[in-house]
Amino acid sequence: MKKRYLLAPGPTPVPEEVLLAMARPIFHHRTDEFRTLFKRITQGLQYVIQTSAAVFTQVSSGSGAMEAAVVNVLSPGDKAIVVDGGYFGARFAEIARAYGAEVVLITIPWGEAVDADAVHQALKENPEAKAVYTTFCETSTGVVHDVKALGEVVRETDALLVIDAISGLGTVELRPDDWGIDIVVAGSQKALMIPPGLAFLSVSDKAWKVIEANKSHRYYFDLLEAKERLKSWDSRFTPALSLVAALDRSLGLIKEEGIENVWARHGMLGRACRAGAQALGLELFARRPADGLTAVCMPEGIDAYEVYKRLLEEYGVTVGTGHTRIRNRVIRLAHLGYAGRFDVILGLAALEMVLKEMGADIERGKGVAAAEEIFAGARDNRDR
Amino acid sequence: MKKRYLLAPGPTPVPEEVLLAMARPIFHHRTDEFRTLFKRITQGLQYVIQTSAAVFTQVSSGSGAMEAAVVNVLSPGDKAIVVDGGYFGARFAEIARAYGAEVVLITIPWGEAVDADAVHQALKENPEAKAVYTTFCETSTGVVHDVKALGEVVRETDALLVIDAISGLGTVELRPDDWGIDIVVAGSQKALMIPPGLAFLSVSDKAWKVIEANKSHRYYFDLLEAKERLKSWDSRFTPALSLVAALDRSLGLIKEEGIENVWARHGMLGRACRAGAQALGLELFARRPADGLTAVCMPEGIDAYEVYKRLLEEYGVTVGTGHTRIRNRVIRLAHLGYAGRFDVILGLAALEMVLKEMGADIERGKGVAAAEEIFAGARDNRDR
Repeated sequence: MKKRYLLAPGPTPVPEEVLLAMARPIFHHRTDEFRTLFKRITQGLQYVIQTSAAVFTQVSSGSGAMEAAVVNVLSPGDKAIVVDGGYFGARFAEIARAYGAEVVLITIPWGEAVDADAVHQALKENPEAKAVYTTFCETSTGVVHDVKALGEVVRETDALLVIDAISGLGTVELRPDDWGIDIVVAGSQKALMIPPGLAFLSVSDKAWKVIEANKSHRYYFDLLEAKERLKSWDSRFTPALSLVAALDRSLGLIKEEGIENVWARHGMLGRACRAGAQALGLELFARRPADGLTAVCMPEGIDAYEVYKRLLEEYGVTVGTGHTRIRNRVIRLAHLGYAGRFDVILGLAALEMVLKEMGADIERGKGVAAAEEIFAGARDNRDR
Repeated sequence: MKKRYLLAPGPTPVPEEVLLAMARPIFHHRTDEFRTLFKRITQGLQYVIQTSAAVFTQVSSGSGAMEAAVVNVLSPGDKAIVVDGGYFGARFAEIARAYGAEVVLITIPWGEAVDADAVHQALKENPEAKAVYTTFCETSTGVVHDVKALGEVVRETDALLVIDAISGLGTVELRPDDWGIDIVVAGSQKALMIPPGLAFLSVSDKAWKVIEANKSHRYYFDLLEAKERLKSWDSRFTPALSLVAALDRSLGLIKEEGIENVWARHGMLGRACRAGAQALGLELFARRPADGLTAVCMPEGIDAYEVYKRLLEEYGVTVGTGHTRIRNRVIRLAHLGYAGRFDVILGLAALEMVLKEMGADIERGKGVAAAEEIFAGARDNRDR
């Protein structure tokens, strides 16, 4: 027997009761039974996203919802401003270019957060830009961008603010309606605690005006058609029923905990993981760290990819590797979704063991102790 | 308690052991463990499709794979020939037009199968057509088209033959490599016996040449990128892991039964359902009926939609309604995927009961008896 521990920033562990909800016998989707369910999950998603805007559920990976946020907004030749501060920020630029849009890149060094002034400047220089695209939590670097500050800048213009909240949603405060965020993109396999296969978008009134005027080629990801069908709580295409049943259960868990408490829990886990890493003398990769995952730089002379492999093969612990250019420098510990205090502790303990084996100059137990300190000091330190 | 029976042509019932396979704890997809699984399901799909061509698995409903078969083949302004003999045939035309292609329609009356001569003629008149799109089994009418005959016509030209086999695959003989079929589109929630959420495409060498030369805008459904990733048995985007785990199990069941036996079983079920309906004096809607579902015309004066509702509400039996223009005339009984003799029998018995209630002139038990006759006479009448 080898017990396995999944500490990667997506797919994340799914609560056992949610996994079993998928074993529900298949039912038909053109029924009132399904419509009642679809309405409930749509309202549940509005609660998690904290929006009164319509939320769409589609069968795709998160990238499919990113594509929906591009093809419905941009036509070939349109200009878009894209914040590129990591592997996933760059994806918005890739998609926009694949559809013939002109991309104005705001490139920021990996590990840093975007400055709202840079977006303000880009909008001034490109007043015809249809939208600003950015990640919320950049999963590849562990940075959370200050999307509230970006909203203040973008809402003064005709441009839309589109955020990829795939790994950020449900880990840190997000209030799109108050903050001027027009489209929130989310995925199922992160803090929503269900397996991959569904993706979501919320769409503001300001965004609908752009979408309605946009004549780009689109079919599967067409939000106007989806909007029409959602009026009767119908899914346009056959929905992934088992995942919808799972989502219904996991949204119930989130509602029971309360979204503010979910944010607070992730806040506590993030602080504990960062404190633990720093107590081991390790540097954090993110200047503005997210609460759902922690990107940790490995000590000089230690290959991060080798650390990842040893954690996986010798301890059964799956963490995130560093993407591309930081593959040998960084590992990423997730504490995202169905995560509690002991997920952080086991990640730090495993890291201590592997680093010690590889000859790093660290003191056993010091990371874990620092995390324990944070838990002891948290106002409400239950896992809930 | 009300027992429920799902006799709709998709989503179809999923074997209990396959449902439970989805409760497997989530694992990470950038691992050798996943690659081994992905290789195995890809080879299993090649077996079910009976092709040596590459098969792609994407997270979408079946319509997403139809879109992939359009955007990778056609550029705006390209011409495509589309066989429109029902609700789903028309969808290929919708998608092609949404992407700016010029569509040459071969419209055939609902309930009839396409004539290969009509396709031959259309190709002669439109030699620049990039592809011929057709359904294999048209789910809305219960017709199975003779795609072997179409292949003989299309293979003599530069055009590709693309078939939507979403509800046809695994119910009747299909040999794309021998028959000159270039792209086979399939979905997960029919004879593959898993829940909706995955879709598949096989792509011939002839098709790759067209796809490589095509510069249309595409990203999520880009098959060239998917092909590149499949070389190392990787999924381009986060795959729907639970559904992949389920598919692994259901492909095992299909392999164990043997694809020829799966076809034979559906053949027997189709014959029995048709014999039962006809013994009740009911007309079949399809001139060339499929084996995975039977579209049955209701007697004069009986509203088919009312029959559908009574079956659902009073007997817990979900059948397919007639689409759009045949909604009040036809119901569709599926015997598709995880289906055996008693699914046909219960469908016929329920139909007898409802029709009798509604005052139709039928004799109780006559439909069931006719089905029993077919089962008794089948060379191999086990459900397996």
